[in-house]
Amino acid sequence: MSGNTFGTSFKLTSFGESHAKCVGGVIDGVIPGLEIDMNFIQTEMNRRKPGQSNITTQRFETDFVEFISGIIDGKTTGTPLAFLINNNNHNSQDYNNLKNIFRPSHADYTYFKKYGIRDYKGGGRASGRETAVRVVGGAIAKLMLQKHKINVIAFTSQIGEIKLDKHYLELDISLAENNIVRCPDQIVANKMIEHLKKVKEDNDSVGGVVTCVIKNVPAGIGEPIFDKLSALLARAMLSIGGAKGFEYGSGFRSAEMRGSQHNDIFYTENRKIRTVTNYSGGIQGGISNGEDIYFKVAFKPVPSINRTQKTVDIDGNLCEIKIEGMHDVCIVPRAVVVVEAMAAMTIIDLLRE
Amino acid sequence: MSGNTFGTSFKLTSFGESHAKCVGGVIDGVIPGLEIDMNFIQTEMNRRKPGQSNITTQRFETDFVEFISGIIDGKTTGTPLAFLINNNNHNSQDYNNLKNIFRPSHADYTYFKKYGIRDYKGGGRASGRETAVRVVGGAIAKLMLQKHKINVIAFTSQIGEIKLDKHYLELDISLAENNIVRCPDQIVANKMIEHLKKVKEDNDSVGGVVTCVIKNVPAGIGEPIFDKLSALLARAMLSIGGAKGFEYGSGFRSAEMRGSQHNDIFYTENRKIRTVTNYSGGIQGGISNGEDIYFKVAFKPVPSINRTQKTVDIDGNLCEIKIEGMHDVCIVPRAVVVVEAMAAMTIIDLLRE
Amino acid sequence: MSGNTFGTSFKLTSFGESHAKCVGGVIDGVIPGLEIDMNFIQTEMNRRKPGQSNITTQRFETDFVEFISGIIDGKTTGTPLAFLINNNNHNSQDYNNLKNIFRPSHADYTYFKKYGIRDYKGGGRASGRETAVRVVGGAIAKLMLQKHKINVIAFTSQIGEIKLDKHYLELDISLAENNIVRCPDQIVANKMIEHLKKVKEDNDSVGGVVTCVIKNVPAGIGEPIFDKLSALLARAMLSIGGAKGFEYGSGFRSAEMRGSQHNDIFYTENRKIRTVTNYSGGIQGGISNGEDIYFKVAFKPVPSINRTQKTVDIDGNLCEIKIEGMHDVCIVPRAVVVVEAMAAMTIIDLLRE
Amino acid sequence: MSGNTFGTSFKLTSFGESHAKCVGGVIDGVIPGLEIDMNFIQTEMNRRKPGQSNITTQRFETDFVEFISGIIDGKTTGTPLAFLINNNNHNSQDYNNLKNIFRPSHADYTYFKKYGIRDYKGGGRASGRETAVRVVGGAIAKLMLQKHKINVIAFTSQIGEIKLDKHYLELDISLAENNIVRCPDQIVANKMIEHLKKVKEDNDSVGGVVTCVIKNVPAGIGEPIFDKLSALLARAMLSIGGAKGFEYGSGFRSAEMRGSQHNDIFYTENRKIRTVTNYSGGIQGGISNGEDIYFKVAFKPVPSINRTQKTVDIDGNLCEIKIEGMHDVCIVPRAVVVVEAMAAMTIIDLLRE
Repeated sequence: MSGNTFGTSFKLTSFGESHAKCVGGVIDGVIPGLEIDMNFIQTEMNRRKPGQSNITTQRFETDFVEFISGIIDGKTTGTPLAFLINNNNHNSQDYNNLKNIFRPSHADYTYFKKYGIRDYKGGGRASGRETAVRVVGGAIAKLMLQKHKINVIAFTSQIGEIKLDKHYLELDISLAENNIVRCPDQIVANKMIEHLKKVKEDNDSVGGVVTCVIKNVPAGIGEPIFDKLSALLARAMLSIGGAKGFEYGSGFRSAEMRGSQHNDIFYTENRKIRTVTNYSGGIQGGISNGEDIYFKVAFKPVPSINRTQKTVDIDGNLCEIKIEGMHDVCIVPRAVVVVEAMAAMTIIDLLRE
Repeated sequence: MSGNTFGTSFKLTSFGESHAKCVGGVIDGVIPGLEIDMNFIQTEMNRRKPGQSNITTQRFETDFVEFISGIIDGKTTGTPLAFLINNNNHNSQDYNNLKNIFRPSHADYTYFKKYGIRDYKGGGRASGRETAVRVVGGAIAKLMLQKHKINVIAFTSQIGEIKLDKHYLELDISLAENNIVRCPDQIVANKMIEHLKKVKEDNDSVGGVVTCVIKNVPAGIGEPIFDKLSALLARAMLSIGGAKGFEYGSGFRSAEMRGSQHNDIFYTENRKIRTVTNYSGGIQGGISNGEDIYFKVAFKPVPSINRTQKTVDIDGNLCEIKIEGMHDVCIVPRAVVVVEAMAAMTIIDLLRE
Repeated sequence: MSGNTFGTSFKLTSFGESHAKCVGGVIDGVIPGLEIDMNFIQTEMNRRKPGQSNITTQRFETDFVEFISGIIDGKTTGTPLAFLINNNNHNSQDYNNLKNIFRPSHADYTYFKKYGIRDYKGGGRASGRETAVRVVGGAIAKLMLQKHKINVIAFTSQIGEIKLDKHYLELDISLAENNIVRCPDQIVANKMIEHLKKVKEDNDSVGGVVTCVIKNVPAGIGEPIFDKLSALLARAMLSIGGAKGFEYGSGFRSAEMRGSQHNDIFYTENRKIRTVTNYSGGIQGGISNGEDIYFKVAFKPVPSINRTQKTVDIDGNLCEIKIEGMHDVCIVPRAVVVVEAMAAMTIIDLLRE
Repeated sequence: MSGNTFGTSFKLTSFGESHAKCVGGVIDGVIPGLEIDMNFIQTEMNRRKPGQSNITTQRFETDFVEFISGIIDGKTTGTPLAFLINNNNHNSQDYNNLKNIFRPSHADYTYFKKYGIRDYKGGGRASGRETAVRVVGGAIAKLMLQKHKINVIAFTSQIGEIKLDKHYLELDISLAENNIVRCPDQIVANKMIEHLKKVKEDNDSVGGVVTCVIKNVPAGIGEPIFDKLSALLARAMLSIGGAKGFEYGSGFRSAEMRGSQHNDIFYTENRKIRTVTNYSGGIQGGISNGEDIYFKVAFKPVPSINRTQKTVDIDGNLCEIKIEGMHDVCIVPRAVVVVEAMAAMTIIDLLRE
């Protein structure tokens, strides 16, 4: 277990640091003959990339994906798909002041304790920049899922105290891409944007929640006991930097519910067995039942804030730190596509088995 | 990925069905020379076993664990530890009425869709009985963790609408074993017991939440990117039957928080670097920082209730079902030890790497 | 990597010691709905079991296989198939004299160095008794291969200096089961039997070679680069106790050959692409080409001999040892079915991917 | 199982095609703080690279290795080490004539049957060019093994009918690098070179054998049952393109031997338990015993020869093929460093566990 590889049959191995030459990955388990739709892949990259709006970090990156193996005449050959994403911004900033200081609630201290050495430039491997690699994996997974008519859509359902109270079935979730916070209800989106402005003025950051819906997964996906679909989704989501919680279907609310209320009653529609309600979130006994799969992921506030904070240095001495530069006020709008990517890879991995 | 094996270096492979001869497992990766404390193991089994109080199912099982390999003169040899737990109660009930009917919110339908065949007797492999195997794995893991002074304690923090509002640091959580609901605050425990009586009278069931605390994990445990400690704990917890959500540290509440409030400021205590607050739940960048690790797991209400419910049969015909027998009103008090077991195996697996 | 699990999609986990209660295993990845042909399985067990002829050890074992999970109404459910094989002979001998002495060319010393503790009774986990577990795995794999019309046949092609010089295509290899050495050429078999008598009279043991042929594997099985079919077969074979070498197709003889002589020329037969010769042993670039797969496995002489031998004890003191009891003069005739089992599991594992 | 990743704790993932932009890899599990000795790595690359002498292919490649992640200030950080090796020679030849024709005893046909599509340019992924990636992995493994004083040396022991009959202990095997065939006995080397000239004049190719010796592996390395050190070495070696056989210690010759002759008698030297002979090849019961580990790998003749050969095209039509360009007359001298690389990675992987 090295932490750098995700999946079993559809497998993404990630490498690269935030301020080195590039980040990149190797995808193994792609079906042969898949057409690589570079437009689609780049569109996905753009949904994650920094600088896309005034609520995100202004680091400049084109996030152009270069595939260097596994393709002939625009189609996959079934061999590993390696790719690079250059870091345009690398080495441009001076991180020497962070070399011996641990930023609060970052991974600086824990990496140092684990390895005894760390790439201090912009967080190195622990930077959110590694999620660009996930988005490429997710884009390839989505291209494969298209052949199964499965689609994965995520959106922002909470930023700070501003919550989207409506159930996803009451909304047209495809509208999420219409605004910079990626919330499908424009009225709530406006409130979120207002809130983010305020947080930014305060030189602060704020957390939020992403909701994700996966449609058309056939019944029977997921493995019993330890590799339940819910367990694999939970692991995938909690592997995203800043994720603090996961719930699917009725989630934490189920703790308050009665069995008589929570049980999803079966019925038959067009010869297909379905359920009247879907508190199960499309998963029963860890295996998909053909209904929509939906879940939520909570993200903590970005720990980089434009304020002077107390901390310690490598020798344990108390000191102060001010993290310079433009940071995301809230990571959630950019995390939406990362959540989708992890969900897509989880599903295709199980389908490939 | 088969779903029946948990872990990489400390590995539990589970087998067995609810109403066959036995359930059992094989544990691989146990250190050689470990003394097998059968009293401890059996005590752990008793915390999970059915019939331990009037709020649990009255199925009779001694849950006696028999080790059949990997031990000489009471000590482990480093070779696989196989064990069996007999099903005393097997074949005692007639499940023929369930053979062709799907119980709502059970795994009957999804197993049928996945395999085309299923062991309909008492849920077969999808029965909660498989968690007995996890508890054995967890007990061995705890024996190994003792050598690292690491301990894992879980307790009930919510049943239905009755919540334990106090933070675990305000409580003596070792008191949880003093009452049948395993809540360390006796006043709240009494309310929970009252609530469960009411639910039982209603022939209904109810959900709840387990909180778990792991103390003395050294800094540096967990792997970057995909195998973050938080991700592995989430997967472990969501693999437990009935689990619907996981959050660690500040969890879902972090979504409402500001960075300035949420960041855990470092300080030095006795030359050890620590944090003033612990919203991180002992995990930063997916790696332990030496503070307490704590998390919550939400459980849905038990789907087996003593009421007539609508459902469909194997041919999609509408029908009715009444699930006979005594069932758990709430699984949470018995799930406490299962949560601990999964946490203990997750930690020892990472420590063994 | 624990050493006790074989395979990825079809996975056998082995446990148990030679003189404990039993040996056994868990098979994961069996297709649901497979009829368990107990007669076939037991016949396979009988081909390996001790005491089957006067050239094998006279240890008495019925080697009866008891399945304890994964089956309903005689058919597999797709869940793990756990099984036990009792050790009738356990604890019947006194091994105390071996407790602190390392038998030459056994695993006593290396296990001691690895674990610091070992089960000294009859070799414990390192005993050839563990191969009984492999034969069960192989029998289940063969039942699954039958559905693909693939069959696996091994036979003895050398014992000591007595070699079967004919190519397998010149023989009716199904005749191998007609004699106690499992050599399909009765004249050579007789010579082998004579030779073994002589070796036995000398209180000695002797090595040999098993040849294995796998027919009807479709083209396209095996993975590029590191998981070549040849590599996986080599690993499977060298994992058998006493195996010292593996070669497939032209094997070591290819070192002397010219490319113009060794290249297998393609032709077309009934619209199927075939090769005129088969020096490739059915594998090109690590992937099956549809021709017969064939390979050889060399086995060393059994290290247990009825002679006094010099050795050292646990403290490094020189001493003498005489290993009592009836031992196999040559393991090869019993290894034939183990070779088949490992080959069958290797193929079905790749087919299941 | 994808075939593109080798190892468990020390893990090499390989990618790239012969005539695409580059080949490359990702190494995971490198210890942090390791100094990257680029001179050493490049020297290893030069031992494998084409065009190094007149018996190898004249394809021009600098085989310069560029590391793109996992390093800071010349030292590893413990995160994945990704690297690229450019293909200078890519697209320089016209392979269109091979697009629809299967070269005899190459992987063309089997890749086509497996994937339905293939990179026909120079063998694509099935080209020997992928072994450059293994050599990088091996070089990093050797740098790690140096800290354990373990060294791995391979040499050519047979080319065609020219065999090195002396045991490696009778030779100074470090002399192997002094001649272009990498045989430590200069007299035999000269014969080999003469033989290769003759084969080249015949427009033919020839096979051979590599012997490898690993010194200073401590006792206790290797896993019981399925992951025996011998099994893992066999798999590693048979994964090299063109490998047809593997034997360790007494190998195939053990089949003719008696137990009384073959058993390695223990004795004590300087308080260390050793064996008088080493027919075991340093491995007993699959676990190292502290003696030298040694083994042989047989390679078939290179299938690309400068002669017109009969074959079939993609539609099964008979046709002729002549493979143009300069090819290796014998791959063995270049395979020596690949054998070392695979051995080094196998050992460090087990040591890292």
